[in-house]
Amino acid sequence: MRKVVTFGEIMLRLSPGGHYRFLQNGSFEATFGGAEANVAVSLANFGVETSFVTRLPDHAIGRGAAQALRAFGVDTSGIVYGGERIGVYYLEKGAGERGSVCIYDRKHSAISEATPDDFDWDAIFQDADWFHFTGITPALGGYLPEICEVACKAAKRLGLTVSCDLNYRSKLWTREQAGAVMDRLCRCTDVLFANEEDALRVFGIAAADSDVTAGKLDKSGYMSVARQLRDRFGCGKVAITLRTSLSASDNLWQGLVFDGEEFAFSREHSIRIVDRVGGGDSFAAGLIYALRKQTDAQYAVEFAAAASAFAQTIEGDFNRVTEDEVLRLMRGDASGRVRR
Amino acid sequence: MRKVVTFGEIMLRLSPGGHYRFLQNGSFEATFGGAEANVAVSLANFGVETSFVTRLPDHAIGRGAAQALRAFGVDTSGIVYGGERIGVYYLEKGAGERGSVCIYDRKHSAISEATPDDFDWDAIFQDADWFHFTGITPALGGYLPEICEVACKAAKRLGLTVSCDLNYRSKLWTREQAGAVMDRLCRCTDVLFANEEDALRVFGIAAADSDVTAGKLDKSGYMSVARQLRDRFGCGKVAITLRTSLSASDNLWQGLVFDGEEFAFSREHSIRIVDRVGGGDSFAAGLIYALRKQTDAQYAVEFAAAASAFAQTIEGDFNRVTEDEVLRLMRGDASGRVRR
Amino acid sequence: MRKVVTFGEIMLRLSPGGHYRFLQNGSFEATFGGAEANVAVSLANFGVETSFVTRLPDHAIGRGAAQALRAFGVDTSGIVYGGERIGVYYLEKGAGERGSVCIYDRKHSAISEATPDDFDWDAIFQDADWFHFTGITPALGGYLPEICEVACKAAKRLGLTVSCDLNYRSKLWTREQAGAVMDRLCRCTDVLFANEEDALRVFGIAAADSDVTAGKLDKSGYMSVARQLRDRFGCGKVAITLRTSLSASDNLWQGLVFDGEEFAFSREHSIRIVDRVGGGDSFAAGLIYALRKQTDAQYAVEFAAAASAFAQTIEGDFNRVTEDEVLRLMRGDASGRVRR
Amino acid sequence: MRKVVTFGEIMLRLSPGGHYRFLQNGSFEATFGGAEANVAVSLANFGVETSFVTRLPDHAIGRGAAQALRAFGVDTSGIVYGGERIGVYYLEKGAGERGSVCIYDRKHSAISEATPDDFDWDAIFQDADWFHFTGITPALGGYLPEICEVACKAAKRLGLTVSCDLNYRSKLWTREQAGAVMDRLCRCTDVLFANEEDALRVFGIAAADSDVTAGKLDKSGYMSVARQLRDRFGCGKVAITLRTSLSASDNLWQGLVFDGEEFAFSREHSIRIVDRVGGGDSFAAGLIYALRKQTDAQYAVEFAAAASAFAQTIEGDFNRVTEDEVLRLMRGDASGRVRR
Amino acid sequence: MRKVVTFGEIMLRLSPGGHYRFLQNGSFEATFGGAEANVAVSLANFGVETSFVTRLPDHAIGRGAAQALRAFGVDTSGIVYGGERIGVYYLEKGAGERGSVCIYDRKHSAISEATPDDFDWDAIFQDADWFHFTGITPALGGYLPEICEVACKAAKRLGLTVSCDLNYRSKLWTREQAGAVMDRLCRCTDVLFANEEDALRVFGIAAADSDVTAGKLDKSGYMSVARQLRDRFGCGKVAITLRTSLSASDNLWQGLVFDGEEFAFSREHSIRIVDRVGGGDSFAAGLIYALRKQTDAQYAVEFAAAASAFAQTIEGDFNRVTEDEVLRLMRGDASGRVRR
Amino acid sequence: MRKVVTFGEIMLRLSPGGHYRFLQNGSFEATFGGAEANVAVSLANFGVETSFVTRLPDHAIGRGAAQALRAFGVDTSGIVYGGERIGVYYLEKGAGERGSVCIYDRKHSAISEATPDDFDWDAIFQDADWFHFTGITPALGGYLPEICEVACKAAKRLGLTVSCDLNYRSKLWTREQAGAVMDRLCRCTDVLFANEEDALRVFGIAAADSDVTAGKLDKSGYMSVARQLRDRFGCGKVAITLRTSLSASDNLWQGLVFDGEEFAFSREHSIRIVDRVGGGDSFAAGLIYALRKQTDAQYAVEFAAAASAFAQTIEGDFNRVTEDEVLRLMRGDASGRVRR
Repeated sequence: MRKVVTFGEIMLRLSPGGHYRFLQNGSFEATFGGAEANVAVSLANFGVETSFVTRLPDHAIGRGAAQALRAFGVDTSGIVYGGERIGVYYLEKGAGERGSVCIYDRKHSAISEATPDDFDWDAIFQDADWFHFTGITPALGGYLPEICEVACKAAKRLGLTVSCDLNYRSKLWTREQAGAVMDRLCRCTDVLFANEEDALRVFGIAAADSDVTAGKLDKSGYMSVARQLRDRFGCGKVAITLRTSLSASDNLWQGLVFDGEEFAFSREHSIRIVDRVGGGDSFAAGLIYALRKQTDAQYAVEFAAAASAFAQTIEGDFNRVTEDEVLRLMRGDASGRVRR
Repeated sequence: MRKVVTFGEIMLRLSPGGHYRFLQNGSFEATFGGAEANVAVSLANFGVETSFVTRLPDHAIGRGAAQALRAFGVDTSGIVYGGERIGVYYLEKGAGERGSVCIYDRKHSAISEATPDDFDWDAIFQDADWFHFTGITPALGGYLPEICEVACKAAKRLGLTVSCDLNYRSKLWTREQAGAVMDRLCRCTDVLFANEEDALRVFGIAAADSDVTAGKLDKSGYMSVARQLRDRFGCGKVAITLRTSLSASDNLWQGLVFDGEEFAFSREHSIRIVDRVGGGDSFAAGLIYALRKQTDAQYAVEFAAAASAFAQTIEGDFNRVTEDEVLRLMRGDASGRVRR
Repeated sequence: MRKVVTFGEIMLRLSPGGHYRFLQNGSFEATFGGAEANVAVSLANFGVETSFVTRLPDHAIGRGAAQALRAFGVDTSGIVYGGERIGVYYLEKGAGERGSVCIYDRKHSAISEATPDDFDWDAIFQDADWFHFTGITPALGGYLPEICEVACKAAKRLGLTVSCDLNYRSKLWTREQAGAVMDRLCRCTDVLFANEEDALRVFGIAAADSDVTAGKLDKSGYMSVARQLRDRFGCGKVAITLRTSLSASDNLWQGLVFDGEEFAFSREHSIRIVDRVGGGDSFAAGLIYALRKQTDAQYAVEFAAAASAFAQTIEGDFNRVTEDEVLRLMRGDASGRVRR
Repeated sequence: MRKVVTFGEIMLRLSPGGHYRFLQNGSFEATFGGAEANVAVSLANFGVETSFVTRLPDHAIGRGAAQALRAFGVDTSGIVYGGERIGVYYLEKGAGERGSVCIYDRKHSAISEATPDDFDWDAIFQDADWFHFTGITPALGGYLPEICEVACKAAKRLGLTVSCDLNYRSKLWTREQAGAVMDRLCRCTDVLFANEEDALRVFGIAAADSDVTAGKLDKSGYMSVARQLRDRFGCGKVAITLRTSLSASDNLWQGLVFDGEEFAFSREHSIRIVDRVGGGDSFAAGLIYALRKQTDAQYAVEFAAAASAFAQTIEGDFNRVTEDEVLRLMRGDASGRVRR
Repeated sequence: MRKVVTFGEIMLRLSPGGHYRFLQNGSFEATFGGAEANVAVSLANFGVETSFVTRLPDHAIGRGAAQALRAFGVDTSGIVYGGERIGVYYLEKGAGERGSVCIYDRKHSAISEATPDDFDWDAIFQDADWFHFTGITPALGGYLPEICEVACKAAKRLGLTVSCDLNYRSKLWTREQAGAVMDRLCRCTDVLFANEEDALRVFGIAAADSDVTAGKLDKSGYMSVARQLRDRFGCGKVAITLRTSLSASDNLWQGLVFDGEEFAFSREHSIRIVDRVGGGDSFAAGLIYALRKQTDAQYAVEFAAAASAFAQTIEGDFNRVTEDEVLRLMRGDASGRVRR
Repeated sequence: MRKVVTFGEIMLRLSPGGHYRFLQNGSFEATFGGAEANVAVSLANFGVETSFVTRLPDHAIGRGAAQALRAFGVDTSGIVYGGERIGVYYLEKGAGERGSVCIYDRKHSAISEATPDDFDWDAIFQDADWFHFTGITPALGGYLPEICEVACKAAKRLGLTVSCDLNYRSKLWTREQAGAVMDRLCRCTDVLFANEEDALRVFGIAAADSDVTAGKLDKSGYMSVARQLRDRFGCGKVAITLRTSLSASDNLWQGLVFDGEEFAFSREHSIRIVDRVGGGDSFAAGLIYALRKQTDAQYAVEFAAAASAFAQTIEGDFNRVTEDEVLRLMRGDASGRVRR
């Protein structure tokens, strides 16, 4: 099989360990993460050849981001060096009623100042059959909406499958900006990922009777959202993640895939949260992996849900999990017994 | 608005990290805490000008305690330097059925050997409109019962509101000693804080049908205790915290304020315990903050309960929380979702 | 009272801290553990004179294992030095649906290459009245089945009580090998410990209607297994631990002792897992301790279950708990309140 | 005595601990630092009332910088909140032949985007008698050259002493830019700090026969530089630090003060480097402190040199040292014996 | 050979790691130490049966001190439990010109409040042939001068060799108090340890031309002190350590033994200081070890000097070194090459 | 240019941090290292395409070793998975007179049990022009002498340059075994690396008047050894490293290359040791890098010496250094100044 290309920003993630608030313990755990990089790592861990494309500053921290990806086997030869800074995000993990806090410091990052000339998509997509990005990439501004569109069109032209996760970030752009840009990009998309909030905020597509803050979710609402998204953009498949946030420590988690005919819901996972960042990315990676293996929708959504449930019990953005571990959980061993 | 003065002991707190037992991992996290210092930090975090008064040894560790308070903006100019040692307490945090363990080494601390001449209350209370202390301060012995009484009387004379938390500590004095001293001090008190055990052990005021160890608590019992305390000491308001200890990891938590007319109960918070020390202090600080803003009893108790529920999901004695965060929780967002 | 002797392997245990996966954080917490060493430490913590017998390489790491035991007061004068390596096991702790992972690297360890001449059982058993080992010791291969048999026979000849925990490890030997060897050894055993899986896998003794992976356990099944074990080997007492693994973070835990007449079940403990390794060993130690004090079966099983429930809320293999703490939990204080 | 005001940028400093290279150990120690903030902390530690003026983003990291300063007693009431990011600098500490590495990520910081309206210098300088800043502040660009000039003129008008450290940073501006701006600012300056490189690079003022990289320094060269600086700008005093970098681990360190008449050299300190960042800032603070006490030039330069030698044996930008400790070293106790 | 008994205080030692100042990094490394405990550990590491006698509070920290000793094989059965606190000392390690700082918080410790009835010296000295203590023990006050005298007399009566290290601590008692008490105790002493300062400060015995702070030491001065001490107290041997403190990071270190005939000086060791606390204790232990083996004075002083030079390259009070390692260094391998 | 292949063992390296002795601080830093892996990482850091060939167990720790290499860009596609364990080595770092200690636990490792069939050298050497291994690889025993010989012959047949570092390890084989095997392998070698001890111990080739332990080294002795090695094996170049171990903390370090005509000595580096393991490997990598660029012997030895001097100021086996950093040091900037 050929390789998957993902495109986006990778940031330095700074998080005080354990349950500390920012600056409480005088140190930060330094890792890297970003929606599309997280997908790349997951796929590489499943054995898929994956290339991550971005722009990074040519200094020790920028080079370190590439090194972190390379450790998992992600191909970093498509990374362009230039610009002055790597985006940073500060993450404080919550507990119980206290939610996690993210502070982004990603403006002016090397990737956000990329120009169309930085990327030769025909070369990048050589030997590739899948292209994945998320709504964060165009939201970074500058030339990125244009670059994303160029990339999507090149991908379609070269016969790649294109997948996109809406991933709306209100700190990066307005609903109007997002709506206009994502509308164009989603029309190139074969597999569209979203959660209820994304669809509502980007496209105004609502699911009735859901109150996310209160933690009430409604299956039929999600089905309605999936159908509306598919109808509007004509993508082959729409996938939605359903999170019930009981507290910062305990979540319920489920996936839905709609292929125009069947609504396949995964079983609902009960997650003891270790680190919920990257849950959606792990779901996307799991689904891409399964779909590329031509599995049916039910298998694919179960695999994706299990992979992403697992991811949230692991520290960091990256899903450090093997296919074998996902399969064990997917097949029902959720008892957490010791594997000797 | 004018400032709040709190008076008591601040100790060096030594705690092995995570779930380690004492000395298991060869290190101690070194922070500071103490009932009245905790209240001062909470208030300063809410933007209230607060002064903490104590006596500390004039060496790096004693000076470090003042430094820790000053970081939060607490005024430390009222601290007297002298004496030989700072009190120490060792804290081991429990999990599940294993309870936390506190070992106090606070005898002979600088504050416990203070003399009445150390504190010029007229100067200390300049620009102040509120004085807070707890039953731990007089329990430290020496001249402290006398000093507390002098302080309370000065506060009343100068028109300050006086609040006191019973905070009975059986390791520091007997019920008889506590009863005699606290009886005098509570008569100067406008706002009295207690929990069921305190009232019983200090004043013999019982709430029927409650078995604290077994974790059974009864609302009407608390109402009865609150009324008895108010009647006996003539304080304007009595506030009580209700803790149901399901395990060292999970507690239920609720507050009650009685102003002579209405019994205002907060909603019950379900707490995933990170560090329960200082829960009562955060409640007191929250209530003082709300009452100073002339809010009604219901608002005040909700604010105090939310503030102190939040505090118990944070490492350390000090409640590192802003008013904004308390309000968000108080208004019902207890889902622990990520705040980006 | 005289001393207890335990015999087996002690390994270097390497575990990334917190919820990290292997090698994720660049370090390992280095402790020591092993079934029989764990029992020795528990007993020493209860004040029982205990001697641990093994073979260790004569270098800093091997000597360090003895040092770790000696800290708890375990007598290490019976340890033989020789061989080239100490067994190592890597432990990654799970969370929620993600189970813990153990990787053993114990082959060719000093103890596994011991010869019968290494141990003078008559000298070792001087002043002893109890001998404990587990099925792991003969499973290490080489001369160990023979050495165990020699030890058991010497113990019986010298009037010691012999206890054995089946502790089947499929990575170390096959069911057939285990069945043959353990059959001989169990015939020397006065107190036999097992869990449902052990009895089934070593001796083919099944309890109906239990599906361990699914977390369903059945009391009558355990009673049947206990009776079959006792009948087959003629041991005075059979003790079984019942674990319901709700997730890697939450387990239910209960003990059963059958003395031929009465089936004594302990109350079921709800455990917030900190470190479940060594749970069975703590149970064995608790039971040995109680039985040596001539308590009745119900008291003994409650003590053993409380001790081992407590152990699983503590980091590491060793049960860092005092008799006093076990008694407090055994008597019903499972609320996890702060002990000041 | 009245207070000192310093004005500039405070950055989040991220440094892997010990001798690790960037990202080698997966964590960063998180502290704060910046030339003028470092001076403020030193002065506060000497008991001088000091106010630090800057602009910080209104989030947990920005607020944390103020908190860090406040711990030392620095007045932070003059800090303006606004803008989007706090500057970051990454610091890797060297050893032996391997030099330390600094990576700056300070562009677009809140302070660099400040406008003249952000600061009301008449209010800021109330109760102040000294104003200190360094060449880094105007080098941040935007309105800062203008703001610095406004501040200097206000300071002069209000009768404050003005001190400035050239602190040339080639990454921030060119020699030409620096020369033009600093020329204007130095004309308002009463006490001018420099090192040989600064004078050369900013103003083209050279000291013959010095090759900084090769570690050769020449006293007469420094005297010549000092005289030229004083003559050109008419400042009352010029102070220069002389560093001989034997290796990243061992430096020689000396100060020179020239008041127009006498060249006062301090004794040369032999420094075992723990953290050399902030050495010049500690020197400036020490000199300001001594000069404000009306000491003679020789005393002042010895105090400043001792303070800054001490600073370089301490982790972090901030000089955590008391006047008493400086005096002990200044008086000749450089043996490093234990102080009990 | 029979066992050695040492008697004194063991304290909890709290030290920030690396080169941090107190409270700079929010944690303390928690170990234990004390002059006589350090000697006991050294001797146990050399294979000598050693018993440490003290009084400790009966809580987790007090029990932990005994556990720390037991790990090294020190017999702790002579420890009496009672009293309320364990002494604490805070240690900050210096670098270069910055000296280390010790803050003692040892008043009111369990041992300092011991009474003569706490120790049954006839039982303690059973099977012992050597008794060691230092001047710190009587300096703790209360009954300790009396207890030490009782112990010394019992030791002499039972035929033990008595050794004593002057170890003058000005924070604990005055020169006059020390002089009076130590005079009596030294008359029971067979082997007397001192450094130049001790002899001067306790007994007014001066060595000409030495200025300790300036780091100048003079061999003939030491010889004069040794002779005076021996003449005054009639002890068989006097041993003196000679430290030249070049800086907190580099010391020269040498030992001298005088047996009435010969002055045996060890070679001078050049020490890269890791942790100098306990250097003198390691020297005493080394000498006791060598003397008990009947070696000549030159061998003994070389062994003691090598052991204690080694000790100062190791973290903590305790000398974690084997006889084999001391011998290797003593025989001249000071090149620090890797031992594979 | 084509790629370099290195072949050997990579081990898990376990080292307590800082200056701790084994097990003193309860944790191990977990990294990976091994002579040939170290060379591969160095070369990859210089931008050379490098492939590392070994055999590793197929579990998380084995996979982690490959991951560690991949982070640096080393190609790991030639790694064979199988066998049961990864070799482990424990490293304790010394200070001053206390040398570092290595404990190897590498027997029975996956690579040591490799068979000739595991490696298809024709495929491995495709696109390669250089093959490097060291004397450790055949010393691991089993089929490895044979495998090395097969590899060398294939390399020669395919036109690769072969380099070998003698790297004698007395714990792995005797001088006789080493002499016999290495004699055969060195005859295939184009570039031979050694230190004085290696040549003596493996081949009995002595340099007069050198006493390594005493730290005396003699240039002419090294020249004599180089000439003898070259003459005996007919290799084009012989390279020798000259270490003068002043102490565990300070070493002198120099390289020598002899190409049959000229003896090129590098300048002598004065190293403040952070971690000396891998110094020789970094030298070899530096030389290979320079020679492949067709530099002259003097340039090559300076580059190699600078690279390896730099390596010893970095934690871990791997030389985390760029070509640019080596060049800066090589060109004479050894002052350790801050690079901003």
